[in-house]
Amino acid sequence: MPVSVKPDVDGKPDVHAALCPSRGVLEHVTSRWGVLILAALLERPYRFSELRRAIGGVSEKMLAQTLQTLERDGFVHRDAHPVIPPRVDYSLTALGREAAEQVWALARWSERSVEAVERARRAYDEARS
Amino acid sequence: MPVSVKPDVDGKPDVHAALCPSRGVLEHVTSRWGVLILAALLERPYRFSELRRAIGGVSEKMLAQTLQTLERDGFVHRDAHPVIPPRVDYSLTALGREAAEQVWALARWSERSVEAVERARRAYDEARS
Repeated sequence: MPVSVKPDVDGKPDVHAALCPSRGVLEHVTSRWGVLILAALLERPYRFSELRRAIGGVSEKMLAQTLQTLERDGFVHRDAHPVIPPRVDYSLTALGREAAEQVWALARWSERSVEAVERARRAYDEARS
Repeated sequence: MPVSVKPDVDGKPDVHAALCPSRGVLEHVTSRWGVLILAALLERPYRFSELRRAIGGVSEKMLAQTLQTLERDGFVHRDAHPVIPPRVDYSLTALGREAAEQVWALARWSERSVEAVERARRAYDEARS
């Protein structure tokens, strides 16, 4: 089956081209919950219920949907254990780890930068009030 | 004026805490259009109309809104020239450059990984059909 990559004019994937599938890859790893799931899984594998607690504000539905998207993309491995009660572990694949390392760094940068951003917002608002 | 950072239980910003403002910072730099704008501006300053052409699929409204968010956060500098017709240049601040370098790397990674992701999707779909 041919790979359905739509190249840009140079024949290479380009996230800045509206129809290039690489944009969808970028959107999945930078999605609201995708970022937080990948960053959490970089530390260790999680069960579904643990992930739900670790990611403040996520609903069961959004967590399940995002995990399924990340699993289908080949970033997350889902391991369902045939036990009672059912237990499902989620972990990163090698490809997922590459994405997770980058979004983890971006998450830590956001935490370090929040004071600078809040200062910038106050200066912006004050200049316009 | 006190900084309104809501710390997690350890007293440090934490993107995994629902109410921590660092999550908002992360969401702005990873937003659909924010990522593509930052990655483009890492190459060079752009005029509004150039950015619109460079970022396939963005509407004028979404581009203006996202640029304003990034400007207020202190990531993007807006330089309006008093000429006729009006000309507005956008460039990265030092803080914006830090974010842009990371999302640029993630964009390039997405382009490199798109074939692996498409293979994973086919395998996932075939296992379930």
